[in-house]
Amino acid sequence: MNNHQWRVARYPKADEVLSAAHFEWTAAPAPAPGPGEFLVRTLCLAPGPAQRGYLDQRQNDFYGEVLPVGAVMRGRGVGVVTESQHPDYAVGDYFVGSLGWQEYSLQQPRGSEFIFSTRKISQPLQPSSLHLGVLGQAGGTAYFGLTEGAQLRAGDSVLISAAAGGVGSAAGQIARALGARQVVGISGHADKCSWLVDELGYDAAINYKSEDLDARLAELFPDGLDVMLDNVGGPVLDTALRHLAQGARIALSGFIATQYAAGARHGPANYSNLIFKRAAMRGFVYFDYWERYAEVEAVLTHWYREGRLQNTETVIAGLERMPEALASLFSGAHRGIRICRVAPDPE
Amino acid sequence: MNNHQWRVARYPKADEVLSAAHFEWTAAPAPAPGPGEFLVRTLCLAPGPAQRGYLDQRQNDFYGEVLPVGAVMRGRGVGVVTESQHPDYAVGDYFVGSLGWQEYSLQQPRGSEFIFSTRKISQPLQPSSLHLGVLGQAGGTAYFGLTEGAQLRAGDSVLISAAAGGVGSAAGQIARALGARQVVGISGHADKCSWLVDELGYDAAINYKSEDLDARLAELFPDGLDVMLDNVGGPVLDTALRHLAQGARIALSGFIATQYAAGARHGPANYSNLIFKRAAMRGFVYFDYWERYAEVEAVLTHWYREGRLQNTETVIAGLERMPEALASLFSGAHRGIRICRVAPDPE
Repeated sequence: MNNHQWRVARYPKADEVLSAAHFEWTAAPAPAPGPGEFLVRTLCLAPGPAQRGYLDQRQNDFYGEVLPVGAVMRGRGVGVVTESQHPDYAVGDYFVGSLGWQEYSLQQPRGSEFIFSTRKISQPLQPSSLHLGVLGQAGGTAYFGLTEGAQLRAGDSVLISAAAGGVGSAAGQIARALGARQVVGISGHADKCSWLVDELGYDAAINYKSEDLDARLAELFPDGLDVMLDNVGGPVLDTALRHLAQGARIALSGFIATQYAAGARHGPANYSNLIFKRAAMRGFVYFDYWERYAEVEAVLTHWYREGRLQNTETVIAGLERMPEALASLFSGAHRGIRICRVAPDPE
Repeated sequence: MNNHQWRVARYPKADEVLSAAHFEWTAAPAPAPGPGEFLVRTLCLAPGPAQRGYLDQRQNDFYGEVLPVGAVMRGRGVGVVTESQHPDYAVGDYFVGSLGWQEYSLQQPRGSEFIFSTRKISQPLQPSSLHLGVLGQAGGTAYFGLTEGAQLRAGDSVLISAAAGGVGSAAGQIARALGARQVVGISGHADKCSWLVDELGYDAAINYKSEDLDARLAELFPDGLDVMLDNVGGPVLDTALRHLAQGARIALSGFIATQYAAGARHGPANYSNLIFKRAAMRGFVYFDYWERYAEVEAVLTHWYREGRLQNTETVIAGLERMPEALASLFSGAHRGIRICRVAPDPE
């Protein structure tokens, strides 16, 4: 079996647009599992903003060592076991883990190891990408961000930034399912704003590129917002901080607007409004809740079966398009949960 | 009785040094109480950074209407009842409330009304300024900031900015009494740093003007800080955000470094570290805890009697010096809790 792989070719500079030019397309025979190992065929991969961090020296306090040039690019995916020398993993089992940007990988159980955490999917659904998406990391990040990070309570008014992104497209639906009174999303594209309202149940969507965000927030949240889920930072967060209700809670999971920018970064000047509104900003990390995965999977699957949580994936077909899939998170191309389909699900 | 008063003469511009030139010194006969009112003789007043906000249009969302030119300047103090037409207030009773920058004021009970909240002191101590200071608003702000804002737990490492200020000089002692493992203060004056360590029980103090704050924090908090109490903002907060322990909690009660500055304000760029450290910043306001005042007074008085909480007041004698007392909060002149002594405590 030939194993195609994307390897790190060079690091993107700050502000540089990420593309296939940063990676090298290679092939090698698929390896054979040793004792305690199993071979996983990648079915689908999900790009995530963190993946750019694996190539950025400035982020290595958090993500660990920067991936060396020549290494297979790191990334999470769903796969199926095709050979096994591990008693708990049989051929045909579904597996979520750090598969890398490649068709086959040797794996072993790694439990709760931050971005390397693994788990077997006991009751796989079709498409298997659900387990990376609304029932997986995207849905889980939204769920724990809203419940733990922002302490969402029924009746809250909720603002989601990057609402048409992977986490955001799940978060609006999950906020609603958790009893939010009002759910508003922010996006930078008119068609995505329509999608949020027409198909995902958002009450309103704000196009921050064409509308006056400050004025629209004042109009939509006359009493202020109770909860915000933010992975954007920059001017969007700063403007939202002007519209907090008393006791508001902002859950932070990223700051894509400035994380990979060149030059001096500025923070949100309106953080001072946290004082006036007795409000809080709290950072959270999805993998901290890995041990509660069964809980979130049960909840999300229940809502999915009830039709309250729909799959928001956009499929980008072929491992060769994985750099494009990652770049789309930063350019805004595509919408929802980006899934790179590497191989078809087994029948 | 002649009643001297400071009235608002003109508003300070952004970045302008506050001085007596912004106020007018006037005199008028003391008023007589009507039914339900009582006359209070001011014994002492405490300047507070918020008082500058009463003169600043930009702050009026929070503090209410900007004080009009010609009005008696607003400010909290301790006084003694000298005439009464209220059944619950007898001549000789001690009273905490919004007395204004004047020798006499008509008062009535105003319960829990934010900056106008009042209360009778049931067991007055000498000097009466204690009830404005370590046993009053300064101590209460520190106590609720640490316990509620920052959720201080025994064993935490604690950083206090503006540590030689009114709240800070109480906060270090209170953090210690609450079981903090390590207490570090930041100040801009060498003599104040010595005072923190030699007399107030701080483990260490950093002079942010003469030392490299980032390097000193790295040295003093090799595992990061668990708790920060901040009313400064600006570069001090931004630098401290680089030194958070996992799950750190920052309580915010002000942002004196930038609140009255001219030009564009920047927020703390390192707020992004809240994510990496799963940390939180939470704003709090002392008056929100007014209904729990008996609790905090009992705790602080207990520590004061045990010698674990010492009075850190600097007395500035004479109502005529009240503008100077307020200005000193911004210039760093004086240290600890500034008290303007207006009249001697009754024997």
